[in-house]
Amino acid sequence: MSMPTIAIIGGTGAEGSGLAMRWVAAGYTVIIGSRSAEKAHTRAEELRAALGERARGTLRGLPNTEAAAAGDIVVLTVPYSAHKSTLEGIREQVQGKIVVDCTVPLQPPHVTRVFIPEGGSAAQQAQALLGENVRVVAAFQNVSAHKLQDLDADVNCDVLVCGDDPDARETVIQLAHAAGMVGLHAGPLQNAVVVEGLTPILIGINKRYKSKGAGIRITNIPRPDEA
Amino acid sequence: MSMPTIAIIGGTGAEGSGLAMRWVAAGYTVIIGSRSAEKAHTRAEELRAALGERARGTLRGLPNTEAAAAGDIVVLTVPYSAHKSTLEGIREQVQGKIVVDCTVPLQPPHVTRVFIPEGGSAAQQAQALLGENVRVVAAFQNVSAHKLQDLDADVNCDVLVCGDDPDARETVIQLAHAAGMVGLHAGPLQNAVVVEGLTPILIGINKRYKSKGAGIRITNIPRPDEA
Repeated sequence: MSMPTIAIIGGTGAEGSGLAMRWVAAGYTVIIGSRSAEKAHTRAEELRAALGERARGTLRGLPNTEAAAAGDIVVLTVPYSAHKSTLEGIREQVQGKIVVDCTVPLQPPHVTRVFIPEGGSAAQQAQALLGENVRVVAAFQNVSAHKLQDLDADVNCDVLVCGDDPDARETVIQLAHAAGMVGLHAGPLQNAVVVEGLTPILIGINKRYKSKGAGIRITNIPRPDEA
Repeated sequence: MSMPTIAIIGGTGAEGSGLAMRWVAAGYTVIIGSRSAEKAHTRAEELRAALGERARGTLRGLPNTEAAAAGDIVVLTVPYSAHKSTLEGIREQVQGKIVVDCTVPLQPPHVTRVFIPEGGSAAQQAQALLGENVRVVAAFQNVSAHKLQDLDADVNCDVLVCGDDPDARETVIQLAHAAGMVGLHAGPLQNAVVVEGLTPILIGINKRYKSKGAGIRITNIPRPDEA
């Protein structure tokens, strides 16, 4: 599949909407999923309007379950509190597919403290819940939704991609590139605990240093964006 | 104390030696500690020779216990396998002081996989072992020893500083600055699990992308090095 269809579960939120816009601008077919069919439709319409002529691919909205069924790649951008229930709702529809988990385990109100859930990470929880026929890849947890939604902004944040399946990992590295970022192979899925945990540290840095979209960049390596 | 004496326990290794050189070049009094008095003396002599006229502070070598007793700030740069026994050996000498733990928990040969030890992180283990009269700060885990030892090199790696005591944290941020890096307040000691765990990810990136000193940089914040 040269240009897979991407379903974004929880895609009406800021992170999912930002990714949707960038992938549609890059020519992908994207489906925004929401618990509410109406919200999904409305958000898709809004994003299409915002994209205007920059939309090279197509964008539509569907309820989460239908979106998951229609996607070749299923991206999960929901708050951690909805992580488990959302996965249970799409478990059947994602069998045999790549699931990209962008979830950050947070324990409000302590959103600047690293919280390690049972099982190690949200991504490992997803893998355990979905079963071995699903290739879970963890990515995009550290990316500022604000910057994603501004197509003219340099996101200026690397995407550390963790997963156990080499092809799935490489596919997600390409999706990061398509969205204007550098994706890097960051090891097996068990390493996701660190990438997820970077987000509360970045939230804390935003508060302390009065910034909005703190991100990370891997230094001292040959980079595709510095060729 | 405007210019504290810094003891580096396990300072004959590459990381400790690199930090020692940079702090001596910045004017600090540094004591290199080793299990062997002779190794400590020899290494201090070698580093003094390497520094030449760039040594603004002084540098000497002592056995670990004596080094810990003589230091105002005690920096720990030992392999994780020696972490517990080293801390037990200096426990008495560091009471009332700041201990900077640079340790990365690794499980050789799987050095590219994140390993979370009992207690959450090496730094939290140190805090538990040393007791509440010691202010443990976690820092410098991600910095390439190779780059540290080359005084003319831009280390190009931020230092994420985790600790529960604000003054101790700020002191370590200043030490990072003195060594030519940007130190950033990265939250409480419990966040050290993520900073420690970044190192196996960076080791993996070095292997995969054929680099030697991969580091991290926090982006999209106001930076003291971009004023």
